[in-house]
Amino acid sequence: MTSTATPVTVLGLGPMGRALAAAFAAAGHPVTVWNRTPGKADGLDAAVATTAAEASAASPLVVVCVINYEAARSVLDPEALRGRTLVNLTGGSPEQARDTARWAEEHGIAYLDGVIMTPVGGPDAVVLYGGPAEVHAAHEATLAALGGKPTHVGEDPGRAAGFNMALLDFFWTSMFGVVHAFRLASAEGIAPGELNGYAQVMSGLLPGMVDAVAEHVAAGRFPGDESSLDSSASVLDDVLDTIRANGLDDAMLAAGRAAVRRAVDAGHGAEGFTRLAAP
Amino acid sequence: MTSTATPVTVLGLGPMGRALAAAFAAAGHPVTVWNRTPGKADGLDAAVATTAAEASAASPLVVVCVINYEAARSVLDPEALRGRTLVNLTGGSPEQARDTARWAEEHGIAYLDGVIMTPVGGPDAVVLYGGPAEVHAAHEATLAALGGKPTHVGEDPGRAAGFNMALLDFFWTSMFGVVHAFRLASAEGIAPGELNGYAQVMSGLLPGMVDAVAEHVAAGRFPGDESSLDSSASVLDDVLDTIRANGLDDAMLAAGRAAVRRAVDAGHGAEGFTRLAAP
Ligand SMILES: NC(=O)c1ccc[n+]([C@@H]2O[C@H](COP(=O)([O-])OP(=O)(O)OC[C@H]3O[C@@H](n4cnc5c(N)ncnc54)[C@H](OP(=O)(O)O)[C@@H]3O)[C@@H](O)[C@H]2O)c1
Ligand SMILES: NC(=O)c1ccc[n+]([C@@H]2O[C@H](COP(=O)([O-])OP(=O)(O)OC[C@H]3O[C@@H](n4cnc5c(N)ncnc54)[C@H](OP(=O)(O)O)[C@@H]3O)[C@@H](O)[C@H]2O)c1
Repeated sequence: MTSTATPVTVLGLGPMGRALAAAFAAAGHPVTVWNRTPGKADGLDAAVATTAAEASAASPLVVVCVINYEAARSVLDPEALRGRTLVNLTGGSPEQARDTARWAEEHGIAYLDGVIMTPVGGPDAVVLYGGPAEVHAAHEATLAALGGKPTHVGEDPGRAAGFNMALLDFFWTSMFGVVHAFRLASAEGIAPGELNGYAQVMSGLLPGMVDAVAEHVAAGRFPGDESSLDSSASVLDDVLDTIRANGLDDAMLAAGRAAVRRAVDAGHGAEGFTRLAAP
Repeated sequence: MTSTATPVTVLGLGPMGRALAAAFAAAGHPVTVWNRTPGKADGLDAAVATTAAEASAASPLVVVCVINYEAARSVLDPEALRGRTLVNLTGGSPEQARDTARWAEEHGIAYLDGVIMTPVGGPDAVVLYGGPAEVHAAHEATLAALGGKPTHVGEDPGRAAGFNMALLDFFWTSMFGVVHAFRLASAEGIAPGELNGYAQVMSGLLPGMVDAVAEHVAAGRFPGDESSLDSSASVLDDVLDTIRANGLDDAMLAAGRAAVRRAVDAGHGAEGFTRLAAP
């Protein structure tokens, strides 16, 4: 930790912004912070600025991490940021990321748009960045303070957000499955503690299924020998009957069942369930 | 392996029925098999019967494992089964299991209704059974041939199917999430091989989330400090925007989003996402 470490500004001190500021400080970077509501910097080894513009002017590298892109744009001062590098770690859509990159370019601000996939700080942290490769290369050493290896996923500033949206699509859809399973179990007189161990066994099957989907999509072939769309349809009908018999919300799985029906109607019944992932 | 091992009959020689017959034979049980379409017994160490009734009469313990309950009922001969024990490992709803148990009782057939959660044969196989405890106890040693520990989940013959339906609700909902994520990634120009490693990281988060849901439901409290329904709503809106911008099917996640909206409208916005699992 030398005094030549790049100064870093962090705008936004929600749980994630605080974790970012702490990680930069722990790696020896002089840190300046700002948050809309004061009093959120307690316990951080950082200088506290009273305005976002003042904070932005304090460092060549400015990281923003607030609730959404609208909030991010409202705290970014183009004059204070001109000539600096802005790294946006706020979550949002690829389109929002690309819009913000255009705005930054118009104002002479170097821009990376990143996503935090897993908690920062540890050696396994996963943070992805889209934007100009040379901007990423110039700040890679500083961004390494967040843990793991800062990964450049492409020149398109919306590309990290694209990864994020696809992964969150998987994560949140699965989470709806988890909560619905516990509701259905309760309705069938099965306590959460009784279901948990078996639900853990089911989660353990997912990594292998993810691999299979990735392989089949890459190969453009969707073998149905282990689980055909026809047999999925029959299992889904049993699950839907049980959901309906208990008077629970069937909308989500019914929508999935409709996607299976369309694929079967299109003649793919004997192919694998993975066929639904075909581009 | 003594010659006193209970003879077992297996009706149905799909991939699962064949695995069951092979596991009983490997454990030293004299096995008789039957399948609607002949010629499916190749390679099995078993006597092949020409009718389901003849096969059923050959053993005190008869296992049926066909595509669905309708097919199962069509192959079960009440006269041949009278006085014997029938173990139904066909997948279906709790209501179908209870119906079949009533039918068995009317015909003087001892009945267990089981579900195969993971591949049979290995030491970690998970097979659950519902029905009279004494019937389970009488055949536990024989059923142990399928691997793992035969688990009795209750007197209700629909209870194993209840576990199965809840677990399949989780599994299939998640699988829809997996295939949709790969479609969204393709639409965003991200190849399956690029997404796979990160999707593996996401699957790795699920066991902890399942634990959290089980804990919160058991406690009847749904703390929102790590992920509130309000913040889920905001992330889901970004994902839905991205799905729609790519012209992909949004029905499933839109249904989930509607469930979040109802919970927020009911005043639970500051509580955790796990609130959706409340009975
Ligand atoms: N937490 C995680 O595990 C995680 C993981 C991956 C990505 N992310 C992303 O990281 C970002 C920040 O998340 P977070 O967990 O720290 O909490 P958050 O609740 O998403 O954001 C809180 C931060 O946003 C600020 N903010 C909200 N509205 C604002 C506005 N109109 N103007 C200015 N600032 C505003 C808050 O300031 P006040 O204190 O003044 O309200 C606070 O600093 C989000 O985009 C999230 O998607 C979070
Ligand atoms: N495979 C798995 O990983 C797995 C896991 C857990 C549970 N299960 C359950 O195990 C059961 C069997 O599955 P499976 O994988 O072996 O294959 P399957 O395709 O579900 O069932 C094939 C079996 O059903 C028979 N069958 C179909 N229609 C019939 C009818 N109308 N009358 C009589 N027999 C009929 C077939 O006979 P023919 O040869 O004459 O067509 C064959 O023996 C299902 O209920 C499934 O849900 C399977």
